[in-house]
Amino acid sequence: MRPTAFPVIDGIEINNWDRALFEQLHAGGVSCVHATAAVWEGARRTLDRLITWDRLFRDHADLIMPAACSADVLTARQQGRTAVMLGFQNTAPIEDDPGLIPIFHRLGVRIIQLTYNIQNLVGSACFDLDDGGLTRFGRTVIAEMERVGILIDCSHVGDRTTLEAIDAAQGPVAITHANPRWFCDSPRNKPDDVIDALARRGGVIGLTLYPNFIGGAQTSLDEFCAMAAKLVDRIGVEHVAIGSDLACGWSDADLVALRHGRTRPDAPAASWPRWQPWFRSPADFPRLMDGLAAAGFTDTELRAIMGGNWMRLWDQTMNAPR
Amino acid sequence: MRPTAFPVIDGIEINNWDRALFEQLHAGGVSCVHATAAVWEGARRTLDRLITWDRLFRDHADLIMPAACSADVLTARQQGRTAVMLGFQNTAPIEDDPGLIPIFHRLGVRIIQLTYNIQNLVGSACFDLDDGGLTRFGRTVIAEMERVGILIDCSHVGDRTTLEAIDAAQGPVAITHANPRWFCDSPRNKPDDVIDALARRGGVIGLTLYPNFIGGAQTSLDEFCAMAAKLVDRIGVEHVAIGSDLACGWSDADLVALRHGRTRPDAPAASWPRWQPWFRSPADFPRLMDGLAAAGFTDTELRAIMGGNWMRLWDQTMNAPR
Repeated sequence: MRPTAFPVIDGIEINNWDRALFEQLHAGGVSCVHATAAVWEGARRTLDRLITWDRLFRDHADLIMPAACSADVLTARQQGRTAVMLGFQNTAPIEDDPGLIPIFHRLGVRIIQLTYNIQNLVGSACFDLDDGGLTRFGRTVIAEMERVGILIDCSHVGDRTTLEAIDAAQGPVAITHANPRWFCDSPRNKPDDVIDALARRGGVIGLTLYPNFIGGAQTSLDEFCAMAAKLVDRIGVEHVAIGSDLACGWSDADLVALRHGRTRPDAPAASWPRWQPWFRSPADFPRLMDGLAAAGFTDTELRAIMGGNWMRLWDQTMNAPR
Repeated sequence: MRPTAFPVIDGIEINNWDRALFEQLHAGGVSCVHATAAVWEGARRTLDRLITWDRLFRDHADLIMPAACSADVLTARQQGRTAVMLGFQNTAPIEDDPGLIPIFHRLGVRIIQLTYNIQNLVGSACFDLDDGGLTRFGRTVIAEMERVGILIDCSHVGDRTTLEAIDAAQGPVAITHANPRWFCDSPRNKPDDVIDALARRGGVIGLTLYPNFIGGAQTSLDEFCAMAAKLVDRIGVEHVAIGSDLACGWSDADLVALRHGRTRPDAPAASWPRWQPWFRSPADFPRLMDGLAAAGFTDTELRAIMGGNWMRLWDQTMNAPR
């Protein structure tokens, strides 16, 4: 494991995991990654995904370990391993039953995104025609997630639903992977009022490296880091982190399935975007850190952005009594 | 909670639980009960059953608590509560995937019966026309149950499959609820060679109070306790315990569904048996203990039969590393 001055956490990756990727996390000095374990899966298929993770944890115990809280990040770092925190990018796994939330919490899930691209029982998503806001069921889900200690993620969530979720939550919430919309105009990026509300309530936004949401692969590392500096000036360094959204190892057919689930049998073919040369795998984290340092961030600020802010947020949201 | 000289454990009950039943456990001084959480349910419906138990634990926290190991029995006793250990009376919940075994272990399940009345993927059951023995999948299931620390239960299992399961297991196994066949001739009761093999490998048999397997409601407490004494003479007091199989609160339609699941749409109607006047609810445990004492069991022997043997067996089987 590459030594780092402080714990480095990637706020989200959605790779088709294998040993080579775990080795790249090591090469990048990443002590913890939040890994997406389900997107469109209902409860039963989600169990299959968690069983797959059981197998990965057993087969690659020399490289990875499960993460249930911020302390596990430190343990993993001491042991030269990468802690993997499991999350869902959708509330599909809990179907219509908040009772499944403590079940999945006991199975290790610590972060759940409220909606993914389209409307669900909880609320509207970033690609919906109209955002009807957080539903009554969504309010129940948020309360139960906070009760058991699962972090609320609003990354793919619609703007209005995100604002209402921030308001409905008692504690802070996360946007694990998105950028300011002024940096790249996409429904997947967030307008200022959403980011401001998130920060005001103590939340954290993980800046994403996904090419489509930084303006394409031609965007430079300097431009990305300048965006981070400008955002920090606006909302404070304690509310900014990294969530790369790396999506390695998938086929183009997988991309279509990830985007739409089974909801659009007519979905057009699509191809994964080309990633920028300065960030293509978990091994590129040192380069990102160098870029942020060159943009003027101090060591203390880098420590917060590269992992410290996630750990603080996790301490605030995941340790609630069950 | 009625005070008892030692922890009292009922090795199995399959009630349609409500608060009145938890109160009867208290009236009977029962510090722990193994409760059946699933019989015919596949993985998804089993989650629903576990969610129902989550709710029961929350709503009746003054009376009950979850039990994951023998230490929880002592904690419950100190607190005047009843510890409830969850189990399955079938391997239906794990479907065709041993990967579900550690999942259900993490969700609190500590005892799984290999088969229930009829053949399944694991082996044959007590009411099968022919017992083909433990399957290859069954051997995998046993190994995985032992690895994660789930007790193997052979109560409704066929004779040959039971013998092969006892042989395939590295550690001791349980028959949580059955009697010697010489006491009451039923396929649900166990022949001497099965009971002898169970005891030889350190296992425990929980004697059942279910009327059909003690010879009917006219059988007296004295006769039941004399049977227990005779069995103890044969296999040793450390291998004998109680598993009442109380089944309170169900309708006659529920009985048919419990017996056959969905496998026999043509199943004839059936009625629950009348229970013997000396044992009709969890509140009758003191009467049972008095009967055993009258049959000549010492306090040390009673301590073993009424709970100590279950706790020893659980310590041997449930604390394997994950």
